[in-house]
Amino acid sequence: MASDWRELVADKRRRQQESIPKDWLISPPPETALDVTSIPEGCELLSPRELLITNTTDISVLLEKLASAEWTSVEVTTAFYKRAIIAHQLVNCLTEIFVERALGRAAELDAHLKATGKVVGPLHGLPVSLKDQICIKGLETTMGYVSWIGKYADRDAALTEILYEVGAVPFVRTNVPQTLMWPETFNNVFGRTTNPANRSLTSGGSSGGEGALIAMRGSPLGVGSDIGGSIRIPALCNGIYALRPSYRRVPYEGCVNSMLGQDSIPSVLGPLSNSLSGVKAFMKAVIGQKPWLKDPLAIRKHWDEEEYALVEHGGGKKLCLAIMWNDGITVPSPPITRALNMVKQALLTAGHEVIDWQPLKHADLCRTISAIWNAGSQRDFEVTTAPTGEPVVATMNLVDTGVAVASFRPDNAGISAYELWQVQNTRSQLRKEYLDHWQQTAHVTGTGRPVDAIIVPGATWPAPPHGEFKYTNYTMVWNALDYPACIFPVTRVDPELDAQQPRQEFLNEKDKESYEIYDPAKFWNAPVGLQLIGRTMEEEAVIAMTEIVDAALKSGHDAKKANL
Amino acid sequence: MASDWRELVADKRRRQQESIPKDWLISPPPETALDVTSIPEGCELLSPRELLITNTTDISVLLEKLASAEWTSVEVTTAFYKRAIIAHQLVNCLTEIFVERALGRAAELDAHLKATGKVVGPLHGLPVSLKDQICIKGLETTMGYVSWIGKYADRDAALTEILYEVGAVPFVRTNVPQTLMWPETFNNVFGRTTNPANRSLTSGGSSGGEGALIAMRGSPLGVGSDIGGSIRIPALCNGIYALRPSYRRVPYEGCVNSMLGQDSIPSVLGPLSNSLSGVKAFMKAVIGQKPWLKDPLAIRKHWDEEEYALVEHGGGKKLCLAIMWNDGITVPSPPITRALNMVKQALLTAGHEVIDWQPLKHADLCRTISAIWNAGSQRDFEVTTAPTGEPVVATMNLVDTGVAVASFRPDNAGISAYELWQVQNTRSQLRKEYLDHWQQTAHVTGTGRPVDAIIVPGATWPAPPHGEFKYTNYTMVWNALDYPACIFPVTRVDPELDAQQPRQEFLNEKDKESYEIYDPAKFWNAPVGLQLIGRTMEEEAVIAMTEIVDAALKSGHDAKKANL
Repeated sequence: MASDWRELVADKRRRQQESIPKDWLISPPPETALDVTSIPEGCELLSPRELLITNTTDISVLLEKLASAEWTSVEVTTAFYKRAIIAHQLVNCLTEIFVERALGRAAELDAHLKATGKVVGPLHGLPVSLKDQICIKGLETTMGYVSWIGKYADRDAALTEILYEVGAVPFVRTNVPQTLMWPETFNNVFGRTTNPANRSLTSGGSSGGEGALIAMRGSPLGVGSDIGGSIRIPALCNGIYALRPSYRRVPYEGCVNSMLGQDSIPSVLGPLSNSLSGVKAFMKAVIGQKPWLKDPLAIRKHWDEEEYALVEHGGGKKLCLAIMWNDGITVPSPPITRALNMVKQALLTAGHEVIDWQPLKHADLCRTISAIWNAGSQRDFEVTTAPTGEPVVATMNLVDTGVAVASFRPDNAGISAYELWQVQNTRSQLRKEYLDHWQQTAHVTGTGRPVDAIIVPGATWPAPPHGEFKYTNYTMVWNALDYPACIFPVTRVDPELDAQQPRQEFLNEKDKESYEIYDPAKFWNAPVGLQLIGRTMEEEAVIAMTEIVDAALKSGHDAKKANL
Repeated sequence: MASDWRELVADKRRRQQESIPKDWLISPPPETALDVTSIPEGCELLSPRELLITNTTDISVLLEKLASAEWTSVEVTTAFYKRAIIAHQLVNCLTEIFVERALGRAAELDAHLKATGKVVGPLHGLPVSLKDQICIKGLETTMGYVSWIGKYADRDAALTEILYEVGAVPFVRTNVPQTLMWPETFNNVFGRTTNPANRSLTSGGSSGGEGALIAMRGSPLGVGSDIGGSIRIPALCNGIYALRPSYRRVPYEGCVNSMLGQDSIPSVLGPLSNSLSGVKAFMKAVIGQKPWLKDPLAIRKHWDEEEYALVEHGGGKKLCLAIMWNDGITVPSPPITRALNMVKQALLTAGHEVIDWQPLKHADLCRTISAIWNAGSQRDFEVTTAPTGEPVVATMNLVDTGVAVASFRPDNAGISAYELWQVQNTRSQLRKEYLDHWQQTAHVTGTGRPVDAIIVPGATWPAPPHGEFKYTNYTMVWNALDYPACIFPVTRVDPELDAQQPRQEFLNEKDKESYEIYDPAKFWNAPVGLQLIGRTMEEEAVIAMTEIVDAALKSGHDAKKANL
């Protein structure tokens, strides 16, 4: 059987290669070239106008130019497509490539605008990249499984339908790890996606293709999914913005996934972009289409302009945010702590309150979420890979991948439904404790309100070397609680500022292991981002508060520049 | 062990008896008296003013008189308490009785109103009955389990807290079947609740104590729970109004329950009342308190006056409702079909459209919901009853109950978590099919909208004799789909109009069995109600549309009376 699955992979890779227009191929830099982010600017494949278009990171500007027909959808889609293909040749971020189809769609949108003077919808003409789960009728969705090669979608996912309705141009699909249950990106079909800022580092996962593509400015807006950090980790690793919405705010219906039917910790779809305006535009456009009329699990809750105006947060004038310096299990590496300090300083300068956040039972929360996944994950992966006999990927290390046959995580033989209910009940109780914990901060904020949001690390480190992303509690805990989380970039690793600090004492073995992973030389050029955490189903407020933090940080940068 | 649990029961019953004020005891009618609903009027325990108060079925009138201090909370609570105790002596509907505590609370509310001129909240002074799951600090919550006798709550449930905040007076708790997983009401602790309109019939279940109490006008507003029909079946059996809200619209946190941690078909709390104004007042008051700040699973969705104004349903001016005459599995008995026809006629007379509803895969939907419960229910019941060795109730028949030791439903040995996920996935797919099915009716309604709501039977028959409620798909299917359902009374069994129809051919064995259960003589005086079904999370619109149907029916009655 082993030869069978390798043949299927070879055929799929050949077809992928053939889907790339020949004149979009570049001469790749040597493998030793680490930072490849400037190659699109230098490779001469993109015209000055195409560079101008793809360097427009503010989505509201892009949408304005598309709506006014200053830029056509065909030229915008072409520009991003070319840059996406360049990115793919550098960091291996794409799965499905369908240039003709996307440009055909873009031409239709241009024709509609010309004929009627009206846009089709709020994302008119905008190319949008999709994680390799979000089905597009007529295209394969392999999701990194050899066994799913040749599985053509007979209809669009609910989100794809909505993207068409609002005028977007789905134009590429992006790489994932096999099973999706990894914070890095490698699978037996498409191989590994690397980090454009430093290719020896991970792009994160499971939406690693999206993270790397958007960091390369190969897509203005992408859609990932997150069950334990899979939108946020790639956003953090690649220095971009992203949102993990609450369960069921964005329609998931019609997507492929692992562990289908595991309903207690749902994976959620959400946007990744180089700007918060991209995050907001996506959420507002998608929710505006009433996704509950397409997806029975999507919550009937309109986009709420009052929540976005922070009516329940004093209008955003004087927020009290809490900073969680560590989760009580692992102590973040120096660049993460420096980023937290930068945010604190920026918020104080902008006139907001900042207090410390006390984590509550994060280990217990993460244990329950793992127990829920492991309740049946092993069987799920076995059943899915069985048809071709492809190995279940057992590590993200460089050396082992692709030939591993050991099982994914050894401790998940599965449990009974009754046992699963007990874990789920424990988890509900923990959610209640955390809610009360948050409510009780009303006594210490000075605003009369509980803390408006929490600023927390997204991981112990920035993007680590491949195979080294070994601790995910900093993202998982918010999935367990179902709190929305917005990722924003803060800085980059600076060997001078972020030297390893000598430590003799550790909280536990995991803390020691995490400490030893960090090395400023290895982490060269890695972006550093953070999470802003809000209350369940409060996406509008979470975006608005992240805008406030982002603006405070930027005005700090500007002030610094002015002082130089 | 058997003697042990019987001793615990004897002690609990003695304590319950002692909690009843001696001068509220009545001389009970003979057991052969079937309709006991007029006994409160005739037993001379209630003063004319107390009868006036307790016969005020429109909650908005009660609330107005309480808010204006025309009636004090103490006198309203006393009146309903006395009538509740009368009801209890006739149909055995209560579990916890705490007169002093409730009257103390009422007196506090009266004092507050007198001192400040202001009500505490929108339910100021109103006595509210609670199913024996909804914890009140310091009181036992047995939920029909001998093993839970002596289990005193150390805090209020989230809903209890909210009821206090909005000014209500929790004043009694009401009977349930052991495990809650029955459509009738019997347990080893408190015994059986019977139907006030005909005590040889069931009061329904599992909120059967609520249904019987409210029909006796022993409570103006009650709270039940529904996982497969447990609010609606008692409402139907007792001729009252009720709402099964969508999952997580009303906070469940802090309630006891069976199968805790079973999160895929959540039980939901909802109101039962003699008026729709009671249903609406409850929902608006509870949601107005932002239950998501107390219950992490409650959905952050404000009460929506626009949805209540039927903005998405053409303002309610010309609705198109669909009638489901049967579910394709069992054909309803004559009184149910007559009620459907009455509604159809009333709606047409009122100028609305009426079309037929085609059920879609109801058998599949109900199979999945049963499979989810059975995934671990047997083990749950065994674990819960083990401490005292009380028998798991195996039937609701008169002869066997109380001594049964056979297990609850023989086919639920339990499955693995992975197998549960497969069932849950099937169920999600069925929900998608049903959503599309509903959306597609936009082509045939003539309103440009899909069908606004569906009118469906709540069961094959009105309240059957004890032990005969053997088919629950008519309610369960909407739990599987998570569609809100509002119950409204229509008529009563009339031996002349509702004679059994000769049938030779049956859809299946279940249809034949259901057919044979009906007998107009046995079903004498049984109330007949129906369900109005709306879209997930559309409680406001469901209440508003039921008001329209109810008004249409009542103006039909009035027209008939005028013609006589």
